[in-house]
Amino acid sequence: MELIDGTRISNNKRTRLKEKIDKIRLETGKVPGLATILVGNDHASQIYINSKIKACKDVGIKSFHYNLDLNTSQANIINLIKNLNKDSSIDGILLQLPLPYNQNARNCINAINPLKDVDGLNPFNVGLLNISKNWDEIVKNNIFVPCTPLGIMNLLHLSNIIINGKTTIVIGRSNLVGKPLSTLLLANNATVIMAHSKTKNLQKLCKIADIIVIAVGKPKFLDKNFINDGVVIIDVGINRITNKICGDVNIDLIKDMKITITPVPGGVGPMTITMLLENTLKAFNINRTKK
Amino acid sequence: MELIDGTRISNNKRTRLKEKIDKIRLETGKVPGLATILVGNDHASQIYINSKIKACKDVGIKSFHYNLDLNTSQANIINLIKNLNKDSSIDGILLQLPLPYNQNARNCINAINPLKDVDGLNPFNVGLLNISKNWDEIVKNNIFVPCTPLGIMNLLHLSNIIINGKTTIVIGRSNLVGKPLSTLLLANNATVIMAHSKTKNLQKLCKIADIIVIAVGKPKFLDKNFINDGVVIIDVGINRITNKICGDVNIDLIKDMKITITPVPGGVGPMTITMLLENTLKAFNINRTKK
Repeated sequence: MELIDGTRISNNKRTRLKEKIDKIRLETGKVPGLATILVGNDHASQIYINSKIKACKDVGIKSFHYNLDLNTSQANIINLIKNLNKDSSIDGILLQLPLPYNQNARNCINAINPLKDVDGLNPFNVGLLNISKNWDEIVKNNIFVPCTPLGIMNLLHLSNIIINGKTTIVIGRSNLVGKPLSTLLLANNATVIMAHSKTKNLQKLCKIADIIVIAVGKPKFLDKNFINDGVVIIDVGINRITNKICGDVNIDLIKDMKITITPVPGGVGPMTITMLLENTLKAFNINRTKK
Repeated sequence: MELIDGTRISNNKRTRLKEKIDKIRLETGKVPGLATILVGNDHASQIYINSKIKACKDVGIKSFHYNLDLNTSQANIINLIKNLNKDSSIDGILLQLPLPYNQNARNCINAINPLKDVDGLNPFNVGLLNISKNWDEIVKNNIFVPCTPLGIMNLLHLSNIIINGKTTIVIGRSNLVGKPLSTLLLANNATVIMAHSKTKNLQKLCKIADIIVIAVGKPKFLDKNFINDGVVIIDVGINRITNKICGDVNIDLIKDMKITITPVPGGVGPMTITMLLENTLKAFNINRTKK
């Protein structure tokens, strides 16, 4: 079993990001700014937001945090977003999900200016990604791509894993991971199998794949029965079992196999926040060009 | 071999459309309006446009045709689109593709008001489709879906072909057909394999599929080697060979097999224009509600 070291790749990227932002600050006196919005006080969301704010600080991005009351109105959230859209010190806007059950997350996300949409969830950006013909076009046109799938593509590219012409399976069809990742793999010339809870022959389909991406949130779901030697596995799951974190892959059962895999923790996870930082710098560069 | 009669299904739909539009005209004195834009004088495009204009007339949609000079500037095309966006007698805007080689089709499509985008190609609509969680949400939210894939979904639904839980393969990844169709099949709970020119094991993948959709524009490409008995095949190809039209499937070689297939001509083709008419009525209803 060979591990893809997401922590190391992520740290390298953050070091380079910090250098770039230092240079920008020295040359222009400005730094990218990221606004984070948390509605309510969910404990897990607060931990995520804190990691994001800390990561911003570490690379020199200025963060502006807004914690709205659990009972705030949707109009209040959208008003805040509209003000941040206009604020020239804010390059990226991140709305921490999930929102409290009584809020319509979609209406709020749709209000984010697509040029500040560092999470890549606004329909306009989702559409731009979907119609892009290949990876070069995505990069060249500065399309905002959701952070987790973008992190996965970076892990694959930087680990020199060939995607072109390979058969890949993406298990899970969320708007945050599965769907955009399928689009990205396709843009990299992979054949893509989109699988999910209604898929009937999952073991068989996994066994014909060169690359398996699993994002279902079911601890230790994927075991030997799904896997052939030689496969690359990207484990997006972050599941908590009695204070320990594990992925969607039962890694204990397959560690003797000849596979390449992202560990949990230390695989996809660290890349997600790093991509948020990169997207914020990208937004800064786009907005600076437009000013 | 059982045929899916696209002409019959399409004619039924147009009859019902005409009834609906007649009723609207009697009740409100208004009818839906579709603007068609043709740049240049490409013969095939002219034939397509003429069919669309005739189909509009047949069901009572008022059409407004704009034929711009081959050498017109992009600014001219976009100006026309912007005027049509504002024109309250125009509910839908269709830009006939492909544009002449010197034009950037994407810039023109992006100028179309998403609420008049009856081809469903504006990035905002592509994104709305992509993030929709299921078919009900697509219908309920009045998402504009590109006409050919929407026609295919109608053919499958109206032929009582079960999609939920089935393994499907879509061969071809265009923005007009392959990509939106994959999204629609996924929204109908199919497992979707997205295949294309870089796919290496196409025969094997087709043989595990319950439904094969082929849209590659290669006459008679799909033959016995790709097909098991019991499969449903949707042939999107429209290829001209010595004045005869044939699909992407070599139907002569498989006609003794136990399969269900859309013929060419008379399968997917007739549905595409019918979906354009339905999308125009939908745009009329949306715009009327907003007024």
